[in-house]
Amino acid sequence: MRATLIYGAGDVRVETVPDPKLVEPSDAVVRVVRACVCGSDLWPYASLPAREHGRPIGHEFLGVVEETGADVTGVRRGDLVVAPFKYSDGTCEFCREGLQTSCLHGGNWGEPGVDGGQGEAVRVPQADGTLVRLPHTEDEELLASLLTLSDVFPTGHHSAVTAGVSKGKTVTVIGDGAVGLSAVLAAKRLGAEQIVLMGRHPARTDLGREFGATDVVTERGEEGVEKVRELTAARGTHTVLECVGTLPAFEMGLGVVRPGGALSRVGVPQYPEGPIGRPVFLNNITITGGVAPARHYIPELLPDVLEGRYQPGRVFDRTVGIEDVPTGYQAMADREALKVLVAF
Amino acid sequence: MRATLIYGAGDVRVETVPDPKLVEPSDAVVRVVRACVCGSDLWPYASLPAREHGRPIGHEFLGVVEETGADVTGVRRGDLVVAPFKYSDGTCEFCREGLQTSCLHGGNWGEPGVDGGQGEAVRVPQADGTLVRLPHTEDEELLASLLTLSDVFPTGHHSAVTAGVSKGKTVTVIGDGAVGLSAVLAAKRLGAEQIVLMGRHPARTDLGREFGATDVVTERGEEGVEKVRELTAARGTHTVLECVGTLPAFEMGLGVVRPGGALSRVGVPQYPEGPIGRPVFLNNITITGGVAPARHYIPELLPDVLEGRYQPGRVFDRTVGIEDVPTGYQAMADREALKVLVAF
Repeated sequence: MRATLIYGAGDVRVETVPDPKLVEPSDAVVRVVRACVCGSDLWPYASLPAREHGRPIGHEFLGVVEETGADVTGVRRGDLVVAPFKYSDGTCEFCREGLQTSCLHGGNWGEPGVDGGQGEAVRVPQADGTLVRLPHTEDEELLASLLTLSDVFPTGHHSAVTAGVSKGKTVTVIGDGAVGLSAVLAAKRLGAEQIVLMGRHPARTDLGREFGATDVVTERGEEGVEKVRELTAARGTHTVLECVGTLPAFEMGLGVVRPGGALSRVGVPQYPEGPIGRPVFLNNITITGGVAPARHYIPELLPDVLEGRYQPGRVFDRTVGIEDVPTGYQAMADREALKVLVAF
Repeated sequence: MRATLIYGAGDVRVETVPDPKLVEPSDAVVRVVRACVCGSDLWPYASLPAREHGRPIGHEFLGVVEETGADVTGVRRGDLVVAPFKYSDGTCEFCREGLQTSCLHGGNWGEPGVDGGQGEAVRVPQADGTLVRLPHTEDEELLASLLTLSDVFPTGHHSAVTAGVSKGKTVTVIGDGAVGLSAVLAAKRLGAEQIVLMGRHPARTDLGREFGATDVVTERGEEGVEKVRELTAARGTHTVLECVGTLPAFEMGLGVVRPGGALSRVGVPQYPEGPIGRPVFLNNITITGGVAPARHYIPELLPDVLEGRYQPGRVFDRTVGIEDVPTGYQAMADREALKVLVAF
């Protein structure tokens, strides 16, 4: 099959690799129908040291089950399924609590011995715990929205849930990437009253407004903080959804969170230490979030996507075939594309 | 009147100062019956630069109302009242939400123009929002327990509440000072199943066991983390109540918190930055807590104290008169006393 491998910063290649086969009785093999490139794929694309052997990449896909191991009972050949961005057994103590990202027998796509998501097929470990069945559809827009259930929509939702977004709450979303826009959509869905989107790319913030942002702040740093405070009677917002992962984004988040409020991080932090001293303490600020247990949220989000009430797939603004995945990476790295869909 | 002033590190004096008088119509004057020395008083006692004029100190007291301003309706002359460790108006948006520590018209005992709590009398600003009426009692033990409502018991409670302690949860309490022991008591009261107390002073950890600790870990740092993990099937505890405020205590807390769990800080952080990078993110750890809105919690905790179900006043292991307050500071700084009560 054809699959995407990363060889180092700026070096993503599509190559022929062995077709996946069942290894464990709990495996399934899924023929990929849609995959995509994640903002977090851009971190290795920016900085991975060059390596002799390529590493499979990609962690978001939906497709059709081709084969199942003897122990698999939840899905069968022919089912359309979506995979969350980590696999998990669905039965360990963490999975039962809804924290599948800490599954005792789970892991990551593309790790040694495991396929990446940006290829024609994937061996799915722990298929019963990992995969979620979907109704069959050939609706392009619906397929795109269903694909977001693998990562970006549940990630935005996780930021909103952990921050405590609910009816009447005020929200600042930091970042107008696909996760930030998904966080806007998730906050709207949970009933937020005011959603301030901090971002500076008009095409993205325009989509943010359609997703529910009530205000857009294009300034950053101190100026950005000042603008949000102007919009919130100098208080800041009850919740801040930090969807970037850099230290300046985190610091800006602390500047706009209301006393007693919460800052949730869903952008992978690119900093080992952060300012969590007295101002955070004296204002009773909670710092929360983390890697989203997408698998936990899919059953909750799926009906709203299937019935068209929310269309998170609108974050995709470019579609490529498998051979053009490297072009898709470059387009996202150059900020020419917001999020790139891969259609097979 | 006689009152306690701090002139710098190690220099606490009891002096005669003017008797407090009503200034604002929302004031009350309270004749102090019981006060005490707080662990947080030991920070300036350790490090305050020497100053020419003493600053009033102390922020925990209960006493009898002597006089009230024209606008005060909630308390009257002769009432026994307890004051939380910050004053607050009770009506602003933060007070209405239960975050009186962020009151828009509140402040701190001992700040310019405001009496400290370790003196014979106190002018209480915003008396209606600040003071809570108590039934009269001359029971020494009850008075001690009621006094803890001004700070240490609600502070322990705040750590447990913000961390999400509830029936069946596992808890690590870091620190065997008065706040740590109060956190043990609060966690027990909220139904925690396992309470691991990290501390190394046998008299204190013994009281911790009486308050509800199921395990005591005397080791610190990596060794301490290892011990807690041994006690928790290598998982750590759902919640960690960090009652010290130093960076090593915070780091130890991160080492013993279970994935998906929460670390609540109620020791004033003595560090401007902390390690909140990928391990915190990948394990979905929430960092919460802060300065406790004691005023918010008093009505909830009061019945349990009045009816003797909980006796937080057992943290007091020494009583002094006003003239011996400096001795009390030294005894606490030397760790000869856990917490010093001042009786008038």
